[in-house]
Amino acid sequence: MKKNKVKVTFLPQNETIEVEKGTTLLEASIRAGVYVNSICGGDGICGKCRLIVKKGDVDTHPTTLLAREEIKKGYVLACQSEVKGEEVIVEVPPESRAAGKILIDKDAQRFRALYAPMKERVIFKYKPLVQKIYLELPPPSLQDNIADHVRLYRHIRRRKDIVIMQSGLKVIRTLPHILRNSDWKVTATLGIRGGTVEVIQVEGGNTTDRNFAVAVDVGTSTVVAHLINLNTFETMDAEATYNSQMVYGEEVTRRIIYAESKGEDRLREAIVEDINNLIITLISRNNIRLNEVMAVICAGNTAMIHFLLGLNPSHLRKEPYIPVCTYPPPVRAAEVGIKINPRGLLYSLPSIASWVGADITAGILATGLYQADELTMLVDIGTNGEIVMGNKDWMVCCSASAGPAFEGSGVRSGMRAAEGAIEKVRISDEGRIQYTTIGGGRPRGICGSGLIDIIAELFKAGFIDRSGRLNPEANGRVREANGELEFLLVPSSRTATKRDIVITQADIENLLRAKAAIFAGINVLTKTLNIKFSDIKKIYLAGGFGNYLDKENAITLGLIPDVRRDIVQFVGNTSILGAKMALLSKDALDTAYKISKNITYYDLITYPDYMNEFMAAKFLPHTDVGKFPTIMQKVKKGAV
Amino acid sequence: MKKNKVKVTFLPQNETIEVEKGTTLLEASIRAGVYVNSICGGDGICGKCRLIVKKGDVDTHPTTLLAREEIKKGYVLACQSEVKGEEVIVEVPPESRAAGKILIDKDAQRFRALYAPMKERVIFKYKPLVQKIYLELPPPSLQDNIADHVRLYRHIRRRKDIVIMQSGLKVIRTLPHILRNSDWKVTATLGIRGGTVEVIQVEGGNTTDRNFAVAVDVGTSTVVAHLINLNTFETMDAEATYNSQMVYGEEVTRRIIYAESKGEDRLREAIVEDINNLIITLISRNNIRLNEVMAVICAGNTAMIHFLLGLNPSHLRKEPYIPVCTYPPPVRAAEVGIKINPRGLLYSLPSIASWVGADITAGILATGLYQADELTMLVDIGTNGEIVMGNKDWMVCCSASAGPAFEGSGVRSGMRAAEGAIEKVRISDEGRIQYTTIGGGRPRGICGSGLIDIIAELFKAGFIDRSGRLNPEANGRVREANGELEFLLVPSSRTATKRDIVITQADIENLLRAKAAIFAGINVLTKTLNIKFSDIKKIYLAGGFGNYLDKENAITLGLIPDVRRDIVQFVGNTSILGAKMALLSKDALDTAYKISKNITYYDLITYPDYMNEFMAAKFLPHTDVGKFPTIMQKVKKGAV
Repeated sequence: MKKNKVKVTFLPQNETIEVEKGTTLLEASIRAGVYVNSICGGDGICGKCRLIVKKGDVDTHPTTLLAREEIKKGYVLACQSEVKGEEVIVEVPPESRAAGKILIDKDAQRFRALYAPMKERVIFKYKPLVQKIYLELPPPSLQDNIADHVRLYRHIRRRKDIVIMQSGLKVIRTLPHILRNSDWKVTATLGIRGGTVEVIQVEGGNTTDRNFAVAVDVGTSTVVAHLINLNTFETMDAEATYNSQMVYGEEVTRRIIYAESKGEDRLREAIVEDINNLIITLISRNNIRLNEVMAVICAGNTAMIHFLLGLNPSHLRKEPYIPVCTYPPPVRAAEVGIKINPRGLLYSLPSIASWVGADITAGILATGLYQADELTMLVDIGTNGEIVMGNKDWMVCCSASAGPAFEGSGVRSGMRAAEGAIEKVRISDEGRIQYTTIGGGRPRGICGSGLIDIIAELFKAGFIDRSGRLNPEANGRVREANGELEFLLVPSSRTATKRDIVITQADIENLLRAKAAIFAGINVLTKTLNIKFSDIKKIYLAGGFGNYLDKENAITLGLIPDVRRDIVQFVGNTSILGAKMALLSKDALDTAYKISKNITYYDLITYPDYMNEFMAAKFLPHTDVGKFPTIMQKVKKGAV
Repeated sequence: MKKNKVKVTFLPQNETIEVEKGTTLLEASIRAGVYVNSICGGDGICGKCRLIVKKGDVDTHPTTLLAREEIKKGYVLACQSEVKGEEVIVEVPPESRAAGKILIDKDAQRFRALYAPMKERVIFKYKPLVQKIYLELPPPSLQDNIADHVRLYRHIRRRKDIVIMQSGLKVIRTLPHILRNSDWKVTATLGIRGGTVEVIQVEGGNTTDRNFAVAVDVGTSTVVAHLINLNTFETMDAEATYNSQMVYGEEVTRRIIYAESKGEDRLREAIVEDINNLIITLISRNNIRLNEVMAVICAGNTAMIHFLLGLNPSHLRKEPYIPVCTYPPPVRAAEVGIKINPRGLLYSLPSIASWVGADITAGILATGLYQADELTMLVDIGTNGEIVMGNKDWMVCCSASAGPAFEGSGVRSGMRAAEGAIEKVRISDEGRIQYTTIGGGRPRGICGSGLIDIIAELFKAGFIDRSGRLNPEANGRVREANGELEFLLVPSSRTATKRDIVITQADIENLLRAKAAIFAGINVLTKTLNIKFSDIKKIYLAGGFGNYLDKENAITLGLIPDVRRDIVQFVGNTSILGAKMALLSKDALDTAYKISKNITYYDLITYPDYMNEFMAAKFLPHTDVGKFPTIMQKVKKGAV
C-alpha cells in the first residue's frame, strides 16, 4: 500500500476505497458511492452524517452533536473525521443510510398552492435584512497596501452608506484565502443587526443570485414557513406542520407549566425541530442549499418566541405577566439550533405583551392598521383570538382565550386547512348539504372556515337553536351516538377516511365558546373605549383558515359584530405576511418596533365585565339579538 | 442506602462521601475534602477539573475541552458531571491533583516592582471600555409591565447616554432568574464594541467594586501583562514571560513560515497559553476570580496580533505585505481561548502596517507624539526597531529588522531585564569594571541596557576599535575562547550561575548589526523627509530594557543621533502603557484608531539606500564620525 493512502471500508455495503490520508469520511463515502446522510453539506452543523468506527483510527474534531455514550461506542461525524493509519472500517448505521424522512404532514403541501408564488405588497422600500453585494476589489500593491478587511470595508462603503459595520473573527479569518483565491472578486453578505450592519459572510465569486430566507409563523397549533427569494422578493414556496409541542399541552399555559417542572429545553427542541424540518422540506424541493439560506424571521405569540429562543416563559402566566423579552435582538440562527448557513441570522418580530405577540405586530404591519385614517379593527383568530382596534393616532389590543377549535383541534372531525378539508358548507332551503373540499377530493375533515359555515348554516336552517342545541326532529341527519346528539355531514361511504364526518353537540358548544370569547373581547374593548360598532369603518379578519372565509356566516355566528359587509375583509395569515414585509424591508421592521411600542394592551382578566359578556355571547348570534339585526331576519322561525 | 443519595469515592485518596443525586463531581470532591484543580470556579471553561470515571455513571454536559480519546477512557470534567445511580468511583489523575504549576519565569516578577503600583497618566477622560453599573429596578406591576430586558435597558439608559445597546441571547436568558432572585437589584457590565455598547453580563447585587482587566504587550520575545483595577484605574500588578512561540523561530518571519507549513494553530495556542498563564498568576496573587476579569486588551506587533487572533499571517511577509486585519474588532476573549469571564471581551489596539504594529500605535498614544507641536521622534527597540517621526500635523514610521539582541537573545550571556540581570556597566579610567544588577544580587546575565553600556564603555576605554574588534592587548580581560575573542565581564566565581559572564566578538557584531539597522532607519527616514538631526526637538526611546537606559551610551553606540542630551527621554514599555490608556478611556482608543489611520508607513525595503546606510552604521559610532561630534572627543586615542 502506498504510504499516504488509507483503505476505507464501509459496512454493511462492504464498499472499499483508497483515499489520501486526511480525507474526511464523508468525502470517502461520496467517492465510494456509499450514501451517507448530510444536510449541511459538510459544515458539521447538522449532525446527520453519523458513522461508527469499527477498526482503525480517525482524527475527529470535537463536536457537541454526539452524546457521550455514542462517542464511547465509536460514533463520529463523517464530515468532521479525517482518516489516518493504513486501514479504517466504518459502519453506516441505519439512521444515516437513507435520506432523513421529513415528518411533515403531507397535507400541509396544500399551503403551497395558497401562497406561492405571491409577491408581497411593496409598501416599504426594498431593504432586505440580509443582502448580498458583489465586489470587484483592486488587488493590493505597495502603494495601496491596506489590510484585507479594510479593503473589503472600503469597497462595501463605496456602495452602501453604513455607519457602523461589524464582523466576527470567523469571517475576518476567511478573508486572505477567499480574496486571493477568487481574484479579489467576492460576494459579501450584509445582515442588519439593530443599528449596525454585520458582514456575516464573504464568498468567492458572484453568488448574489443565491440569497434566500425563510419566514416562519410560529403558532401554538400550526407552524407555517415560507421560502423567500431575497433578490426577487418572491415567495417561492410554503409549507406547514402542526406544532409538535402539542404533546406537552394544547394550550400555551399547559406548556409553560410543563416547562416549569421539566425545563424549557424539550419545548425549544420541539419547535426548533419543526422549523428545521420545514426549512429542509422547502429547500430540498427548490434545489437550495442550507448554506444559501442566510436568514430566518419569526413571528408568533410571545410564549412561542420565548420557547424558540430558550427564554424562561414562567412569568408570562403569573401576575403581573412579564415577558423576558419583547424585542429579541437578531441572533445567530445556529445559537438556538436552527440549521441554515452557520453565520445566518434569526430575526424575531417584536411582541406587544405577554399575551399579545409578534404575530399581532405583524398583522398590524401587514394590514396597515397603524396608518389607517379611520377606526379599524383587526381580529386574528388562532388558538387565542387577538383583537386590535385603532388608527394612525392610537391603538389598543386585547387577547381572548378562544382555544384551538377554529384550528380544527378539539372538534371531532376537525382538521387544519389542508388538502381534503371541508372549507365551505351550504344547507339549501330543502335541507340538502353542499360542501367543497380543499383540493377538490374526498373530504377528510372540516377546517375552520368549514366549521364557521356549518354552525351558521345549521342555525339558519333551524337545525340548532340559539343556544346551539341540535334539534333531533329537525332533520334525518341529526342522530344520537355515544350518548350525545350529532349532525352527520358526510357519511363514511363518501369520505377519504372511510369514517363519518360529523359535528357533535360537544363540538358545537366548543365552537360557541370560542366565538363567544372573541366577541366578548370585541365588546369589552368597544365599551371601554366608548365606541359603537357602527363607528368601526374597517374590519380585518385574519387567521390560518385557508383561502376562504364566509364573512356573512362569521357574522351569523356572532363571531364579529353585525356591520356593513363591505367593510369586512378576510386577510388570511397576516402573521407571516408581516414577517415577510419586515424581512424585505428594514423600514418595515422599524415600523414593527414602533407599532409594538405605541400600542396599549388591555388585559381582559382585569375587566370583571368580561365573564358576563362571554356568557351573553355564547348564544347564536348573541343573547342580545338587537346587536345582530340583519341576522335575525334570515333565521328560520323554528330556531328562534 | 437512601433513594436519592449516591456514594462517591475518590481514588487514589479513597475518600468516600454520600451526596444527593445530581450533585456535580466538583461539588462532591469539595465536600469530600479531595482537592481537584479548577481555575474557572465550575463554569466549565478552564478544563482543569479532569476526572476519570471508574465505576458507576454520571450525566455530563458535552464539552470540547476533552479529546475524543480521553472521553473514551472515561475522562470527564468534574464541574460538568452530575452523579447518578447508587455508586460512583472516580480517579483523580495526577494533572488534576495539585494546583497547576504556572510556567512563568520566576525572574519575570521583577516587572512587578517596576510598574506596580503606577497610576496611568490621566490625559483622557475616564471612560473604561468595560464598566459595571449598579441598578435598583422598580419591580414590575400591572401598570408597569414591560419585559425584563426592556426594564433593564430603560434603567441603564437613565444612567448612561447609549445610542445602540445590544445584548446576546445568553445574557437575556439569565434575566428573569437574576432580577427576581436579587430583588431587582443588579449590576450590569457594559462593554464598548465599536459604535455600540453590549450588556455583557448581569449579576445579582452590587458587584461594581470587582471589575478588573488585563493589558498585554504581546512581544515577539517577551509577553508582559498588567492587572488593572477598572474602578481605581490602578495597575495592581505586573508579570512577564518569554513568548513560548520562540520554539517555532526567534524571528517573526521564521514563525510565519512555520505557520504556513504546519498551520497557525500551534502558534496561536502557544501565545494564548502564555497569556492565560500570566492572567492566572496575576489574579491568584491578588485574590481575584477569573469571572471578575471582564476584559483583556492587547498591543503587539502585527504578526503577534495575527497569531493571537488566528489570522493567517502569511501575506505579511510577501510583497506587497498585506495584513488580514489592522483594526481587529473586540471579540469574546473565549473565542480565541483566553480564559477570563466567559462573556469578557478581548480588545486589540489597531496596527499601522504589516511591520509596524499596535505596539507602535500604543507608543505614539502614550508619548503624545501625535499631538506634539515640535518635531518628535519615537524609537521603540524590541525584536524589531520601529521609528516614528512627526508631530500633530503629520507622522511617518518605518521598521528596521534589528533582531532580538537588545532583548538579550542571541547574545552569549544575554538575558531579559529580570532579576539578576546586569543593567548598568562602567569601566573606570583605570580599567576597573563596575556593574549593578536588577535586584542587587549576584549577576546571572546581561540585559539590553547593560549590553548598550558594555559596548559603549569598551569603546570609550579603547578595548574595542571603531569596527567593534576586541583588542587582545588592551586589557587582561580580553581572552581567546572557543576560537574567538571575548571580554570577561564577571568571572564564574562571582556569578549566580557559576558560569563566566562574557561578551564575545560575535555578540559585539550582533549588537552592532542591531544598532546599525535602527540607526540606518532613522537616517533614511530623516534624509527622505529632508530633516536634519538638529531639527528633532524630542526623542523618546522606548523598549523593555528595564527601569534604566543610559542615553549617553546609547548615543556613544550610535543607536540614536548625537543630539542634545536633554531632549532624549527613556520611556520604557510604551506598548503596554498605551494599551492601558485605551483600556481606561474610549477616547484614547478612538485616538489610537486615528493615529493608525493618519500615519504614513515607509517600507525600508523599497529604499535602495538603506543597505548602504546600514553598512555605514555598523561602525562605532558611525563611519561618518562627523555625525557624532560630541562622542569622538571622549573616546581614547587608541580606539580611533
